[in-house]
Amino acid sequence: MSISEIAKKMKLTSPYVASSSAELRNDALRAVMKALNDNKEEIFAANKKDLIKAEENGISHAVIKRLKFDEGKLYSCIEGIEMLIGLPDPLGKVLLDRQLDTGLDLYRVTCPIGVIGVIFEARPDALVQISALCIKSGNCAILKGGKETTESNRTIFNIIKNAVINAGLPENMLNQAEAHSEIDELLACDKDVDLLIPRGSNKFVSYIINNTKIPVMGHADGICHIYVDRLYDEKLALNVIHDAKTQYCAACNAVETILVNHSVAAEFLPKLYEMLAGAGVKVRGTKEVAQIIQCEVMGEDEFNTEYLDLCLSVKLVDDVKEAADHINYFGSHHTDCIISNDATAVEYFMETVDSAGVFHNCSTRFSDGFRYGFGAEVGISTGKLHARGPVGLEGLVTYKYKLFGHGQIVGDYASGRASFRHIDR
Amino acid sequence: MSISEIAKKMKLTSPYVASSSAELRNDALRAVMKALNDNKEEIFAANKKDLIKAEENGISHAVIKRLKFDEGKLYSCIEGIEMLIGLPDPLGKVLLDRQLDTGLDLYRVTCPIGVIGVIFEARPDALVQISALCIKSGNCAILKGGKETTESNRTIFNIIKNAVINAGLPENMLNQAEAHSEIDELLACDKDVDLLIPRGSNKFVSYIINNTKIPVMGHADGICHIYVDRLYDEKLALNVIHDAKTQYCAACNAVETILVNHSVAAEFLPKLYEMLAGAGVKVRGTKEVAQIIQCEVMGEDEFNTEYLDLCLSVKLVDDVKEAADHINYFGSHHTDCIISNDATAVEYFMETVDSAGVFHNCSTRFSDGFRYGFGAEVGISTGKLHARGPVGLEGLVTYKYKLFGHGQIVGDYASGRASFRHIDR
Repeated sequence: MSISEIAKKMKLTSPYVASSSAELRNDALRAVMKALNDNKEEIFAANKKDLIKAEENGISHAVIKRLKFDEGKLYSCIEGIEMLIGLPDPLGKVLLDRQLDTGLDLYRVTCPIGVIGVIFEARPDALVQISALCIKSGNCAILKGGKETTESNRTIFNIIKNAVINAGLPENMLNQAEAHSEIDELLACDKDVDLLIPRGSNKFVSYIINNTKIPVMGHADGICHIYVDRLYDEKLALNVIHDAKTQYCAACNAVETILVNHSVAAEFLPKLYEMLAGAGVKVRGTKEVAQIIQCEVMGEDEFNTEYLDLCLSVKLVDDVKEAADHINYFGSHHTDCIISNDATAVEYFMETVDSAGVFHNCSTRFSDGFRYGFGAEVGISTGKLHARGPVGLEGLVTYKYKLFGHGQIVGDYASGRASFRHIDR
Repeated sequence: MSISEIAKKMKLTSPYVASSSAELRNDALRAVMKALNDNKEEIFAANKKDLIKAEENGISHAVIKRLKFDEGKLYSCIEGIEMLIGLPDPLGKVLLDRQLDTGLDLYRVTCPIGVIGVIFEARPDALVQISALCIKSGNCAILKGGKETTESNRTIFNIIKNAVINAGLPENMLNQAEAHSEIDELLACDKDVDLLIPRGSNKFVSYIINNTKIPVMGHADGICHIYVDRLYDEKLALNVIHDAKTQYCAACNAVETILVNHSVAAEFLPKLYEMLAGAGVKVRGTKEVAQIIQCEVMGEDEFNTEYLDLCLSVKLVDDVKEAADHINYFGSHHTDCIISNDATAVEYFMETVDSAGVFHNCSTRFSDGFRYGFGAEVGISTGKLHARGPVGLEGLVTYKYKLFGHGQIVGDYASGRASFRHIDR
């Protein structure tokens, strides 16, 4: 069956999944936990095939680390599912309960989004996590993993799918796409797929955003900034920048640009340079910066660079206003931080910087669903609609309006024979 | 200046509008009210020019009615602004207040979306309403009205813009596009425009959805259904269908298709036909329907027709399940109603029909922001992300995460030197 035929079937299935009980969805999650555990040797064997092929193909060590699925990763996947089961049902929450008139009752009630397409690069654990989130939230999901994990994905997917069907959920709730060509097919299913969640490199996510009419939740760039203000704590600044750049430099929430207030540049830059050099971080800076410390000179137009590596851009600014303007212009609206002890400057920064996360005196690396306490994370969104920043379960639900009447007609309200009361309960 | 240059300037202005106080925004709304009233003769004169041109061009009576801007429409616009001023500030609401750890405090706080492009067909009052909503919610707006109201729009826009600037809001908060070619320019501004709100015909909205990467909030189709179930109240059914079809048949929430349970077709269809014929409504139906009442025979594939006129499709179904499946397949996920006294069927319908509005025993015409008590309405969304159904002020806000720390770094939490508390307040 083609992806478009599968998507059409899933669209028709989605209302039945939406109306499934929380008990049934939690039972399905329990069945998935058990099945993953019962069949772990099969999973590890499939994963071994992927690992052997990856080594034959000379795939980088970093990628191999991500595609490896061992006892530890299985355990944390199972732990994640257990936590999801414990969370309250995200569906059926009454967000508004309003009497429009006597016997005319309006409710706004949460419900699943419907059919979600998830496209991710090499990470078998992402398949488990996202399937579990979709089961909990009553969404149908079409999953497309990277080709490097074909064997692992196929095995894990079949285990999950069988467990879900056996628990009593519809057969078409979960489907997998395997061929690379199916990505483009999926991107064309705008009539049947309600949301796409891509997880992967900048280039990969950009391709998806630029080639579909389906709404996309995610982020391509993570160009995060730290601004060191006039009044600042030097030790704190160095410590936070060290963490934000080196704790895991390939993450989207790692810092890429440091903005330093002119008035403290002469004292702070040499210390910054010393710390960064000691951590193996390469520094690139404007001409002004190069007059104070040793660095590669960069052009103003290069500040939209996401290094994802041990490298950093540095620029001087006159004040918090210039810092905010720079961030709003060059940033990716992901996460940006001010290091300052000046309450006025901090407030200005927090209000004016137009990013999903605005931080004060702490590392940009905190921008993450698990660290925010959301439990499972769908991903981080730099878009402004629906969900912004780290997105948990609530990013996978929408709502519908239910109106219960007793024969009321609009004509009576238009003519004045009846009038609205609009009483919230 | 080109639209893309204007959009870029507005993008940079938007954080300043976002951080403006509720007092300033309400003062600006008061200034707009006063200015509209003070300059009403100028507005009426401009509107007269548009009306004369419209009559010269033989524009339909319905459109002329919409583009006319008289004392009554001005009064209801001013009344709408007064109500908006009275509403609580939609910005700065704390949606989440969580201590991640001692001295590491996370807040999710509402803020404006940023730059909104509004494209609407002939309706000067829409310009006033949407400008007012953007002022209240701290959004920048680029407004593009229909060419039939060029003179009215220009006059009203300049009055609003001057009032807003005089009140102290940034000059680039509101801008107008006048040339038709500027629509395509605006659709290409996906780097700077955060949201598009189109208001107009199906064809017009579809064009916009299909030609931009900017998220669009609105609806193209309004194919609403009423399903008459096995157990039903005949008088109620006829009354509700009469209202849903004839009270204002050009509205998106007017009914287009009636589904009737097989078991009541023989008794109900003749009465339905009599009522509809009396109201001047043309009936189209399947072959089965044509065996019971006089009607134009239609094909199964024509049920995706939005008449927006005194015309209706009729089909027989076996049960509520078949009705829901038909609606989910052929509908536009706008508003659909069940007429039934069978609680099980009603619950099934309300859960399973995947529409922004699911109604029981009342007219589909209630699907409207004013009738829901939202005050001003941005429009009705058939999309599932961000806002669904009638959208009020809250559809124009998003949120950001503010994290306040004291030098915390992720490395300490990763190594176990520190651990998260995640305490909600």
